[in-house]
Amino acid sequence: MRKVLVIGIGAGDPEHVTMQAVTAMNAVDVFFVLDKGATTADLTEARRAICERYVTGRDYRTVTLADPPRDRVAADYRGAVRDWRDERARILEEAVMAELGEDGVGGILAWGDPALYDGTIRILETIAAHGELDYEVVPGISSVQVLAARHRVALNRVAGPIHITTGRRLAAGWPEDCDDVVIMLDADLACRAYRDQDIDIYWGAYLGTPDELLIAGRLDKVIDQIESVRREARAAKGWIMDTYLLRRA
Amino acid sequence: MRKVLVIGIGAGDPEHVTMQAVTAMNAVDVFFVLDKGATTADLTEARRAICERYVTGRDYRTVTLADPPRDRVAADYRGAVRDWRDERARILEEAVMAELGEDGVGGILAWGDPALYDGTIRILETIAAHGELDYEVVPGISSVQVLAARHRVALNRVAGPIHITTGRRLAAGWPEDCDDVVIMLDADLACRAYRDQDIDIYWGAYLGTPDELLIAGRLDKVIDQIESVRREARAAKGWIMDTYLLRRA
Ligand SMILES: C[S@@+](CC[C@H](N)C(=O)[O-])C[C@H]1O[C@@H](n2cnc3c(N)ncnc32)[C@H](O)[C@@H]1O
Ligand SMILES: C[S@@+](CC[C@H](N)C(=O)[O-])C[C@H]1O[C@@H](n2cnc3c(N)ncnc32)[C@H](O)[C@@H]1O
Repeated sequence: MRKVLVIGIGAGDPEHVTMQAVTAMNAVDVFFVLDKGATTADLTEARRAICERYVTGRDYRTVTLADPPRDRVAADYRGAVRDWRDERARILEEAVMAELGEDGVGGILAWGDPALYDGTIRILETIAAHGELDYEVVPGISSVQVLAARHRVALNRVAGPIHITTGRRLAAGWPEDCDDVVIMLDADLACRAYRDQDIDIYWGAYLGTPDELLIAGRLDKVIDQIESVRREARAAKGWIMDTYLLRRA
Repeated sequence: MRKVLVIGIGAGDPEHVTMQAVTAMNAVDVFFVLDKGATTADLTEARRAICERYVTGRDYRTVTLADPPRDRVAADYRGAVRDWRDERARILEEAVMAELGEDGVGGILAWGDPALYDGTIRILETIAAHGELDYEVVPGISSVQVLAARHRVALNRVAGPIHITTGRRLAAGWPEDCDDVVIMLDADLACRAYRDQDIDIYWGAYLGTPDELLIAGRLDKVIDQIESVRREARAAKGWIMDTYLLRRA
Protein backbone atom coordinates (compact mmCIF):
# COMPACT_ATOMS: atom_id res chain seq x y z
CA MET A 1 0.00 0.00 0.00
CA ARG A 2 1.13 3.53 -0.72
CA LYS A 3 2.09 5.46 2.36
CA VAL A 4 2.41 9.17 3.05
CA LEU A 5 4.42 10.52 5.97
CA VAL A 6 3.33 13.88 7.37
CA ILE A 7 6.53 15.18 8.90
CA GLY A 8 6.71 18.12 11.29
CA ILE A 9 9.88 20.10 10.60
CA GLY A 10 9.77 22.78 13.26
CA ALA A 11 8.98 26.44 12.87
CA GLY A 12 11.99 28.09 11.27
CA ASP A 13 15.32 26.74 12.49
CA PRO A 14 16.50 23.70 10.49
CA GLU A 15 17.89 22.45 13.82
CA HIS A 16 14.33 22.05 15.14
CA VAL A 17 14.17 18.89 13.07
CA THR A 18 13.99 15.71 15.16
CA MET A 19 15.89 12.46 14.65
CA GLN A 20 12.55 10.82 13.94
CA ALA A 21 11.85 13.37 11.20
CA VAL A 22 15.26 12.70 9.65
CA THR A 23 14.59 8.96 9.68
CA ALA A 24 11.18 9.58 8.09
CA MET A 25 12.56 11.94 5.43
CA ASN A 26 15.12 9.34 4.48
CA ALA A 27 12.34 6.86 3.73
CA VAL A 28 10.57 9.16 1.28
CA ASP A 29 10.53 8.59 -2.48
CA VAL A 30 8.51 11.66 -3.42
CA PHE A 31 7.97 14.86 -1.47
CA PHE A 32 4.71 16.59 -2.26
CA VAL A 33 4.68 20.36 -1.90
CA LEU A 34 1.47 22.32 -1.89
CA ASP A 35 2.73 25.63 -3.16
CA LYS A 36 1.05 28.61 -1.56
CA GLY A 37 2.45 31.14 -3.99
CA ALA A 38 4.88 33.98 -3.69
CA THR A 39 4.18 35.12 -0.13
CA THR A 40 5.51 31.91 1.32
CA ALA A 41 8.20 31.20 -1.25
CA ASP A 42 10.60 31.57 1.69
CA LEU A 43 8.89 28.71 3.50
CA THR A 44 9.04 26.51 0.41
CA GLU A 45 12.74 27.30 0.20
CA ALA A 46 13.17 26.43 3.90
CA ARG A 47 11.59 23.03 3.26
CA ARG A 48 13.87 22.41 0.29
CA ALA A 49 16.91 23.29 2.35
CA ILE A 50 15.83 20.87 5.06
CA CYS A 51 15.51 18.00 2.58
CA GLU A 52 18.86 18.82 1.13
CA ARG A 53 20.52 18.94 4.51
CA TYR A 54 19.06 15.83 6.08
CA VAL A 55 18.32 13.38 3.28
CA THR A 56 21.56 11.55 2.68
CA GLY A 57 22.53 9.09 0.00
CA ARG A 58 19.06 8.62 -1.36
CA ASP A 59 17.30 9.77 -4.48
CA TYR A 60 14.06 11.54 -4.01
CA ARG A 61 11.81 13.60 -6.19
CA THR A 62 9.82 16.69 -5.36
CA VAL A 63 6.41 17.23 -6.90
CA THR A 64 4.98 20.70 -6.52
CA LEU A 65 1.20 21.02 -6.70
CA ALA A 66 -0.56 24.25 -7.41
CA ASP A 67 -2.56 25.17 -4.34
CA PRO A 68 -6.21 25.93 -5.15
CA PRO A 69 -7.27 29.50 -4.42
CA ARG A 70 -8.99 30.04 -1.09
CA ASP A 71 -11.91 32.33 -0.43
CA ARG A 72 -10.45 34.50 2.33
CA VAL A 73 -13.36 36.89 2.61
CA ALA A 74 -16.16 34.31 2.90
CA ALA A 75 -18.66 35.01 5.67
CA ASP A 76 -18.61 31.29 6.47
CA TYR A 77 -14.91 31.03 7.32
CA ARG A 78 -15.01 27.38 8.37
CA GLY A 79 -17.03 26.38 5.34
CA ALA A 80 -14.55 28.11 3.06
CA VAL A 81 -11.66 26.30 4.76
CA ARG A 82 -13.45 22.98 4.32
CA ASP A 83 -14.10 23.56 0.62
CA TRP A 84 -10.50 24.50 0.14
CA ARG A 85 -9.39 21.36 1.98
CA ASP A 86 -11.57 19.11 -0.16
CA GLU A 87 -10.07 20.61 -3.29
CA ARG A 88 -6.55 20.18 -1.92
CA ALA A 89 -7.35 16.57 -1.02
CA ARG A 90 -8.49 15.90 -4.58
CA ILE A 91 -5.34 17.40 -6.07
CA LEU A 92 -3.06 15.57 -3.65
CA GLU A 93 -4.81 12.22 -4.12
CA GLU A 94 -4.44 12.46 -7.86
CA ALA A 95 -0.75 13.25 -7.53
CA VAL A 96 -0.08 10.49 -4.99
CA MET A 97 -1.73 7.89 -7.21
CA ALA A 98 0.13 9.10 -10.29
CA GLU A 99 3.55 9.66 -8.75
CA LEU A 100 3.93 6.89 -6.16
CA GLY A 101 4.44 3.25 -7.03
CA GLU A 102 2.30 0.69 -5.21
CA ASP A 103 4.69 0.45 -2.27
CA GLY A 104 5.95 3.99 -2.64
CA VAL A 105 6.43 6.36 0.25
CA GLY A 106 5.39 9.99 -0.05
CA GLY A 107 6.35 12.79 2.28
CA ILE A 108 4.73 16.08 3.20
CA LEU A 109 6.77 18.46 5.32
CA ALA A 110 4.49 20.31 7.72
CA TRP A 111 5.56 23.62 9.19
CA GLY A 112 5.87 23.47 12.99
CA ASP A 113 3.80 20.65 14.42
CA PRO A 114 1.31 18.97 12.05
CA ALA A 115 -1.32 18.83 14.82
CA LEU A 116 -1.56 22.60 15.25
CA TYR A 117 -3.51 24.73 12.79
CA ASP A 118 -2.47 22.69 9.79
CA GLY A 119 -4.94 20.94 7.50
CA THR A 120 -2.61 18.20 6.23
CA ILE A 121 -3.70 15.47 8.64
CA ARG A 122 -7.35 15.96 7.75
CA ILE A 123 -6.53 15.93 4.06
CA LEU A 124 -4.73 12.60 4.46
CA GLU A 125 -7.63 11.26 6.51
CA THR A 126 -10.01 12.14 3.69
CA ILE A 127 -7.82 10.44 1.10
CA ALA A 128 -7.10 7.40 3.28
CA ALA A 129 -10.85 6.86 3.69
CA HIS A 130 -10.89 5.78 0.04
CA GLY A 131 -8.85 2.76 1.10
CA GLU A 132 -5.79 3.03 -1.10
CA LEU A 133 -3.40 4.91 1.11
CA ASP A 134 -1.93 4.69 4.58
CA TYR A 135 -0.34 7.59 6.45
CA GLU A 136 1.72 8.36 9.53
CA VAL A 137 2.41 11.55 11.45
CA VAL A 138 5.74 12.65 12.88
CA PRO A 139 5.45 15.47 15.44
CA GLY A 140 7.51 18.64 15.12
CA ILE A 141 8.46 21.62 17.25
CA SER A 142 5.66 24.17 16.94
CA SER A 143 6.05 27.94 16.84
CA VAL A 144 4.31 28.10 20.23
CA GLN A 145 7.13 26.15 21.82
CA VAL A 146 9.78 28.22 20.11
CA LEU A 147 8.05 31.36 21.37
CA ALA A 148 8.16 30.07 24.95
CA ALA A 149 11.75 28.84 24.67
CA ARG A 150 13.08 32.08 23.19
CA HIS A 151 11.35 34.16 25.86
CA ARG A 152 12.40 31.59 28.46
CA VAL A 153 8.92 31.34 29.93
CA ALA A 154 6.63 28.44 30.66
CA LEU A 155 3.33 28.45 28.78
CA ASN A 156 1.32 27.63 31.89
CA ARG A 157 1.46 28.91 35.42
CA VAL A 158 1.71 26.40 38.28
CA ALA A 159 -0.92 23.75 37.58
CA GLY A 160 -2.81 26.30 35.46
CA PRO A 161 -4.40 25.83 32.04
CA ILE A 162 -3.27 27.10 28.63
CA HIS A 163 -5.59 28.21 25.88
CA ILE A 164 -4.39 28.32 22.27
CA THR A 165 -6.58 30.24 19.88
CA THR A 166 -6.68 32.56 16.86
CA GLY A 167 -6.63 36.33 16.47
CA ARG A 168 -10.13 36.14 15.05
CA ARG A 169 -11.43 34.49 18.20
CA LEU A 170 -9.55 36.79 20.56
CA ALA A 171 -11.18 39.72 18.77
CA ALA A 172 -14.56 38.18 19.62
CA GLY A 173 -13.75 37.97 23.33
CA TRP A 174 -11.21 36.80 25.92
CA PRO A 175 -11.56 33.04 26.43
CA GLU A 176 -13.26 32.17 29.69
CA ASP A 177 -11.54 30.10 32.34
CA CYS A 178 -8.00 30.97 31.30
CA ASP A 179 -5.50 33.75 31.96
CA ASP A 180 -2.69 32.33 29.81
CA VAL A 181 -3.63 32.53 26.17
CA VAL A 182 -1.50 31.88 23.08
CA ILE A 183 -2.61 33.58 19.86
CA MET A 184 -1.81 32.32 16.37
CA LEU A 185 -3.04 33.32 12.92
CA ASP A 186 -3.56 36.92 13.94
CA ALA A 187 -3.43 39.39 11.04
CA ASP A 188 -4.12 42.48 13.15
CA LEU A 189 -2.78 42.17 16.71
CA ALA A 190 -6.23 41.56 18.17
CA CYS A 191 -4.63 41.87 21.63
CA ARG A 192 -4.74 45.64 21.24
CA ALA A 193 -8.36 45.53 22.47
CA TYR A 194 -7.11 44.36 25.89
CA ARG A 195 -4.46 47.02 26.42
CA ASP A 196 -6.33 48.54 29.36
CA GLN A 197 -6.01 45.31 31.36
CA ASP A 198 -3.12 44.10 33.49
CA ILE A 199 -1.60 41.72 30.94
CA ASP A 200 1.94 40.74 29.98
CA ILE A 201 2.66 39.91 26.36
CA TYR A 202 5.45 37.72 24.95
CA TRP A 203 5.53 38.34 21.22
CA GLY A 204 7.69 36.70 18.55
CA ALA A 205 7.93 36.86 14.77
CA TYR A 206 9.96 34.76 12.30
CA LEU A 207 10.82 32.59 15.31
CA GLY A 208 13.82 30.35 14.85
CA THR A 209 15.01 32.21 11.74
CA PRO A 210 17.80 34.77 11.36
CA ASP A 211 15.07 37.46 11.17
CA GLU A 212 13.59 36.53 14.55
CA LEU A 213 11.95 39.38 16.47
CA LEU A 214 11.15 39.21 20.18
CA ILE A 215 9.35 41.76 22.32
CA ALA A 216 7.99 41.26 25.83
CA GLY A 217 6.50 43.49 28.48
CA ARG A 218 3.28 44.93 29.81
CA LEU A 219 0.78 45.00 26.98
CA ASP A 220 -0.05 48.70 27.35
CA LYS A 221 3.65 49.61 27.43
CA VAL A 222 4.82 47.60 24.40
CA ILE A 223 1.86 47.27 22.06
CA ASP A 224 2.75 50.36 20.02
CA GLN A 225 6.32 49.18 19.64
CA ILE A 226 5.15 45.73 18.54
CA GLU A 227 2.78 47.30 16.05
CA SER A 228 5.43 49.43 14.41
CA VAL A 229 8.13 46.75 14.43
CA ARG A 230 5.62 44.35 12.93
CA ARG A 231 4.50 46.77 10.24
CA GLU A 232 8.04 47.58 9.19
CA ALA A 233 9.16 43.96 9.15
CA ARG A 234 6.19 42.92 7.08
CA ALA A 235 6.76 45.73 4.61
CA ALA A 236 10.45 44.87 4.28
CA LYS A 237 9.99 41.13 3.89
CA GLY A 238 6.62 40.95 2.17
CA TRP A 239 5.12 38.60 4.77
CA ILE A 240 5.11 38.00 8.50
CA MET A 241 4.42 35.08 10.80
CA ASP A 242 4.02 35.97 14.44
CA THR A 243 2.53 34.51 17.56
CA TYR A 244 2.23 35.64 21.16
CA LEU A 245 1.41 34.62 24.70
CA LEU A 246 -0.86 36.85 26.77
CA ARG A 247 -0.55 36.41 30.53
CA ARG A 248 -3.23 38.12 32.58
CA ALA A 249 -2.36 39.05 36.16
CA MET B 1 29.39 33.62 33.36
CA ARG B 2 28.08 30.15 34.15
CA LYS B 3 25.34 29.00 31.85
CA VAL B 4 22.67 26.33 32.16
CA LEU B 5 20.87 24.88 29.16
CA VAL B 6 17.37 23.56 29.76
CA ILE B 7 16.98 21.02 27.01
CA GLY B 8 13.68 19.45 25.99
CA ILE B 9 14.26 15.81 25.05
CA GLY B 10 10.83 14.70 23.92
CA ALA B 11 8.39 12.47 25.70
CA GLY B 12 9.67 8.93 25.43
CA ASP B 13 11.25 8.09 22.09
CA PRO B 14 14.97 8.98 21.96
CA GLU B 15 14.29 9.91 18.32
CA HIS B 16 12.14 12.83 19.49
CA VAL B 17 15.39 14.63 20.21
CA THR B 18 16.03 17.60 17.91
CA MET B 19 19.27 18.58 16.19
CA GLN B 20 19.28 21.69 18.36
CA ALA B 21 19.07 19.55 21.49
CA VAL B 22 21.96 17.41 20.27
CA THR B 23 24.05 20.53 19.65
CA ALA B 24 23.14 21.82 23.11
CA MET B 25 23.92 18.51 24.84
CA ASN B 26 27.31 18.48 23.18
CA ALA B 27 28.14 21.84 24.79
CA VAL B 28 27.42 20.62 28.33
CA ASP B 29 30.13 20.02 30.92
CA VAL B 30 27.86 18.84 33.72
CA PHE B 31 24.35 17.43 33.54
CA PHE B 32 22.28 18.06 36.64
CA VAL B 33 19.65 15.48 37.46
CA LEU B 34 16.97 16.12 40.01
CA ASP B 35 16.20 12.60 41.05
CA LYS B 36 12.54 12.00 41.77
CA GLY B 37 13.05 8.59 43.35
CA ALA B 38 12.12 5.08 42.42
CA THR B 39 8.86 5.72 40.57
CA THR B 40 10.61 7.57 37.79
CA ALA B 41 13.86 5.63 37.78
CA ASP B 42 12.84 4.65 34.25
CA LEU B 43 12.78 8.30 33.20
CA THR B 44 16.20 8.92 34.73
CA GLU B 45 17.48 5.93 32.80
CA ALA B 46 15.89 7.30 29.59
CA ARG B 47 17.77 10.58 30.10
CA ARG B 48 21.05 8.75 30.66
CA ALA B 49 20.55 6.73 27.49
CA ILE B 50 19.91 9.93 25.52
CA CYS B 51 23.16 11.49 26.73
CA GLU B 52 25.05 8.34 25.92
CA ARG B 53 23.57 8.15 22.45
CA TYR B 54 23.91 11.75 21.36
CA VAL B 55 26.91 13.20 23.17
CA THR B 56 29.89 12.27 21.07
CA GLY B 57 33.58 12.67 21.72
CA ARG B 58 33.20 14.88 24.75
CA ASP B 59 33.66 14.29 28.45
CA TYR B 60 30.77 15.23 30.64
CA ARG B 61 29.83 14.57 34.21
CA THR B 62 26.45 13.87 35.71
CA VAL B 63 25.56 15.22 39.12
CA THR B 64 22.47 13.76 40.72
CA LEU B 65 20.71 15.88 43.29
CA ALA B 66 18.29 14.49 45.82
CA ASP B 67 14.90 15.97 45.09
CA PRO B 68 13.31 17.52 48.18
CA PRO B 69 10.10 15.83 49.32
CA ARG B 70 6.91 17.47 48.15
CA ASP B 71 3.72 17.85 50.13
CA ARG B 72 1.27 16.11 47.80
CA VAL B 73 -1.75 16.33 50.08
CA ALA B 74 -1.53 20.04 50.90
CA ALA B 75 -4.84 21.89 50.63
CA ASP B 76 -2.93 24.76 49.00
CA TYR B 77 -1.64 22.84 45.97
CA ARG B 78 -0.01 25.82 44.28
CA GLY B 79 1.62 26.99 47.49
CA ALA B 80 3.05 23.52 48.06
CA VAL B 81 4.42 23.46 44.51
CA ARG B 82 6.03 26.86 45.04
CA ASP B 83 7.68 25.84 48.31
CA TRP B 84 9.01 22.74 46.64
CA ARG B 85 10.33 24.78 43.75
CA ASP B 86 12.14 27.21 46.04
CA GLU B 87 13.82 24.32 47.79
CA ARG B 88 14.79 22.76 44.46
CA ALA B 89 16.19 26.12 43.31
CA ARG B 90 18.33 26.34 46.44
CA ILE B 91 19.71 22.83 45.96
CA LEU B 92 20.39 23.37 42.25
CA GLU B 93 22.03 26.75 42.76
CA GLU B 94 24.39 25.29 45.34
CA ALA B 95 25.31 22.48 42.97
CA VAL B 96 25.78 24.73 39.94
CA MET B 97 28.11 27.03 41.87
CA ALA B 98 30.09 24.12 43.27
CA GLU B 99 30.30 21.97 40.16
CA LEU B 100 30.60 24.44 37.26
CA GLY B 101 33.70 26.49 36.56
CA GLU B 102 33.24 30.18 35.88
CA ASP B 103 32.60 29.65 32.18
CA GLY B 104 31.13 26.21 32.65
CA VAL B 105 28.01 24.99 30.90
CA GLY B 106 25.44 22.96 32.78
CA GLY B 107 22.59 21.00 31.28
CA ILE B 108 19.20 19.92 32.53
CA LEU B 109 17.25 17.51 30.37
CA ALA B 110 13.55 18.31 30.58
CA TRP B 111 10.97 15.66 29.76
CA GLY B 112 8.83 16.63 26.75
CA ASP B 113 8.82 20.37 26.23
CA PRO B 114 10.29 22.51 29.04
CA ALA B 115 7.46 25.06 28.64
CA LEU B 116 4.68 22.62 29.52
CA TYR B 117 4.00 21.65 33.15
CA ASP B 118 7.65 21.62 34.10
CA GLY B 119 9.10 23.79 36.84
CA THR B 120 12.68 23.93 35.52
CA ILE B 121 12.44 27.26 33.69
CA ARG B 122 11.06 28.98 36.77
CA ILE B 123 13.77 27.46 38.93
CA LEU B 124 16.42 28.82 36.60
CA GLU B 125 14.72 32.19 36.54
CA THR B 126 14.87 32.29 40.34
CA ILE B 127 18.56 31.39 40.37
CA ALA B 128 19.45 33.73 37.49
CA ALA B 129 17.86 36.62 39.38
CA HIS B 130 20.84 36.41 41.77
CA GLY B 131 23.00 37.58 38.87
CA GLU B 132 25.57 34.80 38.63
CA LEU B 133 24.04 32.55 36.04
CA ASP B 134 22.64 32.74 32.54
CA TYR B 135 20.32 30.16 30.98
CA GLU B 136 18.82 29.15 27.68
CA VAL B 137 15.87 26.96 26.74
CA VAL B 138 15.74 24.43 23.91
CA PRO B 139 12.21 23.31 23.01
CA GLY B 140 11.31 19.63 22.83
CA ILE B 141 8.49 17.47 21.51
CA SER B 142 5.80 17.35 24.20
CA SER B 143 3.63 14.38 25.08
CA VAL B 144 0.62 16.32 23.76
CA GLN B 145 2.12 16.35 20.29
CA VAL B 146 3.05 12.69 20.44
CA LEU B 147 -0.52 11.91 21.48
CA ALA B 148 -1.90 13.75 18.46
CA ALA B 149 0.67 12.26 16.07
CA ARG B 150 0.11 8.69 17.21
CA HIS B 151 -3.66 9.03 16.92
CA ARG B 152 -3.18 10.94 13.66
CA VAL B 153 -5.50 13.75 14.70
CA ALA B 154 -5.12 17.50 14.82
CA LEU B 155 -5.41 19.06 18.26
CA ASN B 156 -7.72 21.81 17.03
CA ARG B 157 -10.71 21.78 14.73
CA VAL B 158 -10.80 24.22 11.80
CA ALA B 159 -9.83 27.61 13.23
CA GLY B 160 -10.94 26.38 16.66
CA PRO B 161 -9.20 26.78 20.01
CA ILE B 162 -7.38 24.20 22.14
CA HIS B 163 -7.38 24.13 25.90
CA ILE B 164 -4.66 22.26 27.80
CA THR B 165 -5.35 21.62 31.45
CA THR B 166 -4.98 19.20 34.36
CA GLY B 167 -7.11 16.35 35.65
CA ARG B 168 -7.68 18.32 38.83
CA ARG B 169 -9.17 21.22 36.88
CA LEU B 170 -11.28 19.04 34.64
CA ALA B 171 -12.75 17.46 37.78
CA ALA B 172 -13.81 20.96 38.85
CA GLY B 173 -15.65 21.63 35.58
CA TRP B 174 -15.39 21.56 31.79
CA PRO B 175 -13.48 24.63 30.59
CA GLU B 176 -15.72 27.25 29.06
CA ASP B 177 -15.30 28.37 25.47
CA CYS B 178 -13.63 25.21 24.25
CA ASP B 179 -14.70 21.79 22.98
CA ASP B 180 -11.19 20.42 22.37
CA VAL B 181 -9.46 19.84 25.66
CA VAL B 182 -6.16 18.10 26.40
CA ILE B 183 -5.71 16.71 29.90
CA MET B 184 -2.36 16.13 31.57
CA LEU B 185 -1.38 15.23 35.13
CA ASP B 186 -4.55 13.26 35.73
CA ALA B 187 -4.24 10.59 38.42
CA ASP B 188 -7.83 9.42 38.20
CA LEU B 189 -9.29 9.78 34.68
CA ALA B 190 -11.36 12.82 35.61
CA CYS B 191 -13.02 12.54 32.17
CA ARG B 192 -15.23 9.79 33.58
CA ALA B 193 -17.52 12.52 34.92
CA TYR B 194 -18.38 13.52 31.34
CA ARG B 195 -19.24 10.07 30.02
CA ASP B 196 -22.89 10.97 29.50
CA GLN B 197 -21.94 13.65 26.94
CA ASP B 198 -21.22 13.27 23.23
CA ILE B 199 -17.43 13.29 23.47
CA ASP B 200 -14.62 11.46 21.68
CA ILE B 201 -11.49 10.59 23.62
CA TYR B 202 -7.98 9.99 22.28
CA TRP B 203 -5.99 8.46 25.12
CA GLY B 204 -2.31 7.52 25.25
CA ALA B 205 0.06 6.20 27.88
CA TYR B 206 3.86 5.74 27.82
CA LEU B 207 3.74 7.54 24.49
CA GLY B 208 6.80 7.14 22.32
CA THR B 209 8.08 4.18 24.35
CA PRO B 210 7.93 0.45 23.58
CA ASP B 211 5.13 0.21 26.18
CA GLU B 212 2.93 2.76 24.40
CA LEU B 213 -0.82 2.28 24.82
CA LEU B 214 -3.40 3.96 22.59
CA ILE B 215 -7.18 3.87 22.87
CA ALA B 216 -9.65 6.09 21.04
CA GLY B 217 -13.41 6.16 20.68
CA ARG B 218 -16.58 7.56 22.13
CA LEU B 219 -15.97 8.31 25.77
CA ASP B 220 -18.92 6.31 27.03
CA LYS B 221 -17.92 3.30 24.92
CA VAL B 222 -14.21 3.15 25.83
CA ILE B 223 -13.85 4.64 29.29
CA ASP B 224 -14.15 1.28 31.07
CA GLN B 225 -11.56 -0.26 28.78
CA ILE B 226 -9.18 2.67 29.35
CA GLU B 227 -9.69 2.36 33.08
CA SER B 228 -8.84 -1.32 33.21
CA VAL B 229 -5.93 -1.11 30.75
CA ARG B 230 -4.57 1.81 32.75
CA ARG B 231 -4.93 0.02 36.09
CA GLU B 232 -3.21 -3.11 34.84
CA ALA B 233 -0.38 -1.22 33.16
CA ARG B 234 0.27 0.84 36.26
CA ALA B 235 0.27 -2.23 38.46
CA ALA B 236 2.66 -4.07 36.14
CA LYS B 237 5.10 -1.19 35.68
CA GLY B 238 4.81 0.61 39.00
CA TRP B 239 4.00 3.96 37.38
CA ILE B 240 2.03 5.44 34.53
CA MET B 241 2.14 8.63 32.46
CA ASP B 242 -0.87 9.25 30.34
CA THR B 243 -2.59 12.11 28.59
CA TYR B 244 -5.70 12.49 26.49
CA LEU B 245 -7.64 14.72 24.15
CA LEU B 246 -11.38 15.16 24.68
CA ARG B 247 -13.31 16.32 21.62
CA ARG B 248 -16.88 17.38 22.31
CA ALA B 249 -19.36 17.14 19.44
C1 LIG C 1 -1.16 27.81 9.71
S1 LIG C 1 -0.47 28.07 11.30
C2 LIG C 1 0.69 26.74 11.39
C3 LIG C 1 1.27 26.54 12.77
C4 LIG C 1 2.32 25.44 12.78
N1 LIG C 1 1.74 24.14 12.48
C5 LIG C 1 3.04 25.40 14.12
O1 LIG C 1 3.03 24.34 14.78
O2 LIG C 1 3.65 26.38 14.51
C6 LIG C 1 0.52 29.50 11.02
C7 LIG C 1 0.65 30.35 12.25
O3 LIG C 1 1.67 29.81 13.09
C8 LIG C 1 2.43 30.84 13.69
N2 LIG C 1 3.84 30.65 13.26
C9 LIG C 1 4.33 29.64 12.51
N3 LIG C 1 5.65 29.75 12.36
C10 LIG C 1 6.04 30.84 13.05
C11 LIG C 1 7.29 31.46 13.30
N4 LIG C 1 8.43 30.97 12.79
N5 LIG C 1 7.30 32.58 14.06
C12 LIG C 1 6.17 33.08 14.57
N6 LIG C 1 4.96 32.53 14.38
C13 LIG C 1 4.88 31.41 13.63
C14 LIG C 1 1.82 32.14 13.25
O4 LIG C 1 0.89 32.52 14.25
C15 LIG C 1 1.11 31.76 11.99
O5 LIG C 1 0.00 32.61 11.74
C1 LIG D 1 4.99 17.08 34.76
S1 LIG D 1 4.15 16.92 33.23
C2 LIG D 1 5.44 17.15 32.08
C3 LIG D 1 4.97 17.30 30.67
C4 LIG D 1 6.13 17.43 29.69
N1 LIG D 1 6.88 18.65 29.92
C5 LIG D 1 5.63 17.37 28.24
O1 LIG D 1 5.90 18.33 27.47
O2 LIG D 1 5.02 16.37 27.87
C6 LIG D 1 3.85 15.20 33.22
C7 LIG D 1 2.58 14.81 32.47
O3 LIG D 1 2.86 14.79 31.08
C8 LIG D 1 2.17 13.74 30.45
N2 LIG D 1 3.18 12.86 29.83
C9 LIG D 1 4.51 13.06 29.79
N3 LIG D 1 5.12 12.11 29.09
C10 LIG D 1 4.16 11.27 28.66
C11 LIG D 1 4.17 10.09 27.86
N4 LIG D 1 5.31 9.57 27.37
N5 LIG D 1 2.98 9.49 27.61
C12 LIG D 1 1.83 10.00 28.08
N6 LIG D 1 1.76 11.10 28.84
C13 LIG D 1 2.92 11.74 29.12
C14 LIG D 1 1.32 13.06 31.52
O4 LIG D 1 0.04 13.66 31.49
C15 LIG D 1 2.04 13.44 32.79
O5 LIG D 1 1.16 13.48 33.89
